[in-house]
Amino acid sequence: MNITGVVVEYNPFHNGHALHVNESKKETNADLIIAVMSGNFLQRGEPALVSKWSRTKMALANGVDIVLELPYVYATQHAETFANGAVSILNGIGANAICFGSEAGDIQQFKHLVSYISKNEDTYQVFVQQFLKEGMSYPKALATAFTKMENRDEMLDLSRPNNILGYHYVKAIYEQSSKITPYTIQRTTAQYHDKEVPIQSIASATSIRESIIKQKKDLKTIEHVVPTSTFMEIQDFLDLHNGFQHWERLFPFLKYKILTSSIEDLGNIYEAEEGLEYRIASCIKEATSFQELMKELKTKRYTWTRLQRYCLHILTNTSKLEMKHVTTPSPYIRVLGMNQKGRDYINSYKKQMDVPLISTLSKYRHPFIEIEKRAATCYALGFDPIIQNKLMTQEYAHPPIILKSVDCV
Amino acid sequence: MNITGVVVEYNPFHNGHALHVNESKKETNADLIIAVMSGNFLQRGEPALVSKWSRTKMALANGVDIVLELPYVYATQHAETFANGAVSILNGIGANAICFGSEAGDIQQFKHLVSYISKNEDTYQVFVQQFLKEGMSYPKALATAFTKMENRDEMLDLSRPNNILGYHYVKAIYEQSSKITPYTIQRTTAQYHDKEVPIQSIASATSIRESIIKQKKDLKTIEHVVPTSTFMEIQDFLDLHNGFQHWERLFPFLKYKILTSSIEDLGNIYEAEEGLEYRIASCIKEATSFQELMKELKTKRYTWTRLQRYCLHILTNTSKLEMKHVTTPSPYIRVLGMNQKGRDYINSYKKQMDVPLISTLSKYRHPFIEIEKRAATCYALGFDPIIQNKLMTQEYAHPPIILKSVDCV
Repeated sequence: MNITGVVVEYNPFHNGHALHVNESKKETNADLIIAVMSGNFLQRGEPALVSKWSRTKMALANGVDIVLELPYVYATQHAETFANGAVSILNGIGANAICFGSEAGDIQQFKHLVSYISKNEDTYQVFVQQFLKEGMSYPKALATAFTKMENRDEMLDLSRPNNILGYHYVKAIYEQSSKITPYTIQRTTAQYHDKEVPIQSIASATSIRESIIKQKKDLKTIEHVVPTSTFMEIQDFLDLHNGFQHWERLFPFLKYKILTSSIEDLGNIYEAEEGLEYRIASCIKEATSFQELMKELKTKRYTWTRLQRYCLHILTNTSKLEMKHVTTPSPYIRVLGMNQKGRDYINSYKKQMDVPLISTLSKYRHPFIEIEKRAATCYALGFDPIIQNKLMTQEYAHPPIILKSVDCV
Repeated sequence: MNITGVVVEYNPFHNGHALHVNESKKETNADLIIAVMSGNFLQRGEPALVSKWSRTKMALANGVDIVLELPYVYATQHAETFANGAVSILNGIGANAICFGSEAGDIQQFKHLVSYISKNEDTYQVFVQQFLKEGMSYPKALATAFTKMENRDEMLDLSRPNNILGYHYVKAIYEQSSKITPYTIQRTTAQYHDKEVPIQSIASATSIRESIIKQKKDLKTIEHVVPTSTFMEIQDFLDLHNGFQHWERLFPFLKYKILTSSIEDLGNIYEAEEGLEYRIASCIKEATSFQELMKELKTKRYTWTRLQRYCLHILTNTSKLEMKHVTTPSPYIRVLGMNQKGRDYINSYKKQMDVPLISTLSKYRHPFIEIEKRAATCYALGFDPIIQNKLMTQEYAHPPIILKSVDCV
């Protein structure tokens, strides 16, 4: 049985994602597609537009058979930890392939680079450290160090975001001695950072979010770039929650937290390095919005993503001490949803699993789950009081979503 | 020169307070009235309806010559610490009298009781401990222990709230070897806990607040029970701040704080005793308002005030460790406002003072001031973003209010 994993955020699920699922099936000749999906908060240090449950439904309605959660402790990290966590979950659930989109589109380039850098690790690290000392951000230092390596013209371009992630999936597969075979599909239309929804049917998730939240446009502007099931789910979410989640809704809590914490406490939060705690304690005083805070915080040294992640960990009160224990493999695998085919697979496979398979959070205890609950709480607090409690209860008690065949779009 | 101190909250200033100021002047033949006033948060663990600056203006417009701040570390405590802090500030500023309202109205009763209990301290404490063990709240145990003492019928009734405070003022005077002479005036009309604004011109501050906040009545319903200057100040505050401060506005932050804190952290907050941290961590989950939380929390063991104060210290992140160092005398005296007479007095007296006199918070550093700033931050966060920053800046940078004679009402 061919079981293919995809690592996703689906924020929200759109036509490009549907295309990726279909192409992944073809490319790997998959019998089953498993998505490892981030939960309430995403890699760029942002809350998801709609809940993990809504996004799970979108995935199941569009060809994904099982949705597993990528825990907060992996999902909100730089590419290496993110990829390590995701690959370990795919390993744990018995996937034998992973298929990711990339700018390069040629899996040999990834394999070659992983092998090359592993052989020339020392030289590479010397360059990385040099550029970090010169004041570059970490991703920029990685990419620039790479341009200094020999024969680099023939190798993978590590300055492209999806190439970086792909590189780390392949690296994680090697490092975890996994039997998973990596595949990649070339990303063509829609740039990751597009701000406008294009006329054609493929748009980036960024442009879709911008369109909905910031430009306050009618939902109809995104109807042609998402599957009907997504469109209906987004509308349902809006009706039920009276809005979408975004940083500005959570900013009052972030501001409160920063202003009532000691410098020492802010310094104990994960990602507080190089005096960032002093900088944020000063910048917050005048800021009346998250955007204002971020603009004040931003320097050449820190990427926007890095700063957003620090803000997120302050919000969720996630400490360096807690994150110190984040290793792979993931200590549990949580199922967010599945269709009948996915359910049959899980029932047949679960006895072979080395890690616990969790269907309801309340039944299992682990320090990572405490962090997950706090993250869910923060996510919920951005909504009205009645919705807050519903979302929090869902986090503890919601069983996996089971999509019956007749529900399929 | 006769300098008389009054200890007040003025939440808000009303006709009863005006009467108290005038009667205190007569009773003590005062040349100058100094009010020691609580700042953003009050003894019952609640935020003040309007800012300390507005309440200072109300006081200066109605016969008070100098308004000094009772720091958060004294203002939000049980009667003994509250009174100790206030008396130490009156000592420090050179007051030679204190005049308080009481149900008893006879200063001899207070003096007698202080002397009697000091002589029979051991017997009294045995009773107090006994009743605490039986599950009584602390104030209730104090009052009940008192009923067990000999000759108690001839003595001060310690079950009345203003008698308790008065007892502690007189006790503090003795314990601090102060030269202040205590006076008391009998409280007649308006019970402390009245919920309705009466027809006559004297109403309790509680009924005025209830009328404004909870019953959402027109401001006109309180016009006849407050001085014109207070009424105008309240209207100005409302226009500028788009509402009054109360616990429900701060509840989202309290909820966020409780839900993202560890049990250990909640246990380190001041007033977390007897497992109260477990109780609040459980009760908060379902609560959608402050009232709901309080109703869930309340048991015979804890007074409403005690629970509100614990909530307040959680909100302001005030730890047991910080409060351990709260002793008297107050390490500084902060002037919130004065008229010309008050200013002349301060200029003539300040060289004799043993503690620093602070006009602007930003010029002075002390651990208590860090707590004061956090409290001001929390108070401000209940308002709209633009107002928030204005209120926070005021806390650091606002000089004392100077009332010119022509402004007097």
